[in-house]
Amino acid sequence: MGPRILFSAPDEHWPLWRPHLLAAFADAGLDVTLTNDPSGPWTFDYVVYQPGGPVRDFAPFERIKAVLSLWAGVESIVGDTSIVVPLCRMVDVGLTRGMAEWVTAHVLRYHMGIDGHILGQDGVWRNSVVPPLAPERTVGILGLGELGRATAAMLTSIGFRVVGWSRGPRELPGIETWSGAEGLSEVLGASEILVLLLPATPATENTLDARALAMLPRGARIINPGRGPLIDDEALLKALDNGHVGHATLDVFRQEPLPAEHPYWAHPMVTVTPHIASATRPETASMAIAENVRRGEAGLDFLNVVNRAESY
Amino acid sequence: MGPRILFSAPDEHWPLWRPHLLAAFADAGLDVTLTNDPSGPWTFDYVVYQPGGPVRDFAPFERIKAVLSLWAGVESIVGDTSIVVPLCRMVDVGLTRGMAEWVTAHVLRYHMGIDGHILGQDGVWRNSVVPPLAPERTVGILGLGELGRATAAMLTSIGFRVVGWSRGPRELPGIETWSGAEGLSEVLGASEILVLLLPATPATENTLDARALAMLPRGARIINPGRGPLIDDEALLKALDNGHVGHATLDVFRQEPLPAEHPYWAHPMVTVTPHIASATRPETASMAIAENVRRGEAGLDFLNVVNRAESY
Repeated sequence: MGPRILFSAPDEHWPLWRPHLLAAFADAGLDVTLTNDPSGPWTFDYVVYQPGGPVRDFAPFERIKAVLSLWAGVESIVGDTSIVVPLCRMVDVGLTRGMAEWVTAHVLRYHMGIDGHILGQDGVWRNSVVPPLAPERTVGILGLGELGRATAAMLTSIGFRVVGWSRGPRELPGIETWSGAEGLSEVLGASEILVLLLPATPATENTLDARALAMLPRGARIINPGRGPLIDDEALLKALDNGHVGHATLDVFRQEPLPAEHPYWAHPMVTVTPHIASATRPETASMAIAENVRRGEAGLDFLNVVNRAESY
Repeated sequence: MGPRILFSAPDEHWPLWRPHLLAAFADAGLDVTLTNDPSGPWTFDYVVYQPGGPVRDFAPFERIKAVLSLWAGVESIVGDTSIVVPLCRMVDVGLTRGMAEWVTAHVLRYHMGIDGHILGQDGVWRNSVVPPLAPERTVGILGLGELGRATAAMLTSIGFRVVGWSRGPRELPGIETWSGAEGLSEVLGASEILVLLLPATPATENTLDARALAMLPRGARIINPGRGPLIDDEALLKALDNGHVGHATLDVFRQEPLPAEHPYWAHPMVTVTPHIASATRPETASMAIAENVRRGEAGLDFLNVVNRAESY
């Protein structure tokens, strides 16, 4: 008999995911039982999981081999001490591609000054300054994980000069990479457009504080599709008000939905987007889930296991 | 003694171009005399030209070997019957790259629905529809010359499905190409986003007329960085009003500057930009001029000679 798999997520997700998961398990040659009914927790081999579903405590799931997160960001799951088996982050090729596309779209929007045209349809034919070409424009990326690397590759394919930063040293083709505290100031100092793709961990909180913001070139633009706590919001608002930061596009926040009264909404130099930079796509994400179940059944190591000590 | 070259363009261009032209001639190993003083027209070997400068009639320029246009679009020059020597279009790598970047920026803007966010900062956190990924989005390009090909290459590098149309058959790697009247309807029918990069010739006038617009999928977006006369403006306004065309970004017009009272300015589904999609950049364009002078002096064929019968 094949593995028994529980899908635990908010109810409305079940009909969206079920067909894609079944197809992916079939494609992987797996004969599974897939249900969203959590009765008999001791009978399950895997839990496909995001918060907000029936499972609150993993203790009764005595024989599960892994918890397979539907989310790429696991900061709200990683502290769950009832998970004593491997916790796997979602690495979804659809999410990764979508993120690279979203960031590239906003980088090009800033590069070309598109907002001025969208907001300036007043009948005045302005002789604009010719923007520099992409090879003359430096984009900085903080975080060179799956998402940062895919984004860097798409931006370099267009011709941008990309500088990247990660906590530990990393080499990437076509990109200048830095690490450590000194490397961070190098990357910030060069970034006309800065992209935040770090995970939310205790170590990354307020990466962009007043001191870091001051290192950016005057008028720099910030794109945050990573996580809200990466930014010290008060410091960013101050830097936007005094013009040191030229504009920010923010997709993630400490509190989501971002409250209607939050100053980001009304700030003329901020674009708020509602955590849409990239979505897990059931078609492609189901293949990642199936691959990890296949590996578990074959006795192989799981992919994308969270390092609980480093929280990502 | 090296060739004598006249620079004939509106006065304000001379200080912008002179240093780059001198540098490019020196880099090409050419010892030239470069001036913007048109006296003694019979002494010149080449005229670097755009309309609006001192030269109105090329007849007195008895010994010139070529007229080297500073413009890529030569429709306003090609009818000048006083030019009896080769007329060379500008093919500037800077202009080409700038055009590809500009089009890619607006394709991604449409692909991601960015306007909705820029214009919708009202404090409401909307659950947006997840956009398709680039490989699921078809972009059509009419015109596969220098600019169309570079744009197609950049869009395919990001992952878009690109279909291209040109008058005569053309094969391009990674792109589905069509030609002729039947091919045009194929390309229009597939284009969720349509890019116009045809030259302005008698044959291309009103390429996008009511009949062609009707072939587009409902809600299609149009990007015109090519030439104004490619579009039947009344037909486009009608298609925008009835929703068949979802939005248009127009950079070129039959009359430029576009008059303040033109309905495009006020139309909520049109973004007007002031002929900025791409600019000739003196640094790189000067190299193209120098290369043609070098070829002329060496007795080689000129590059990018306009076919006067086909007007481009």
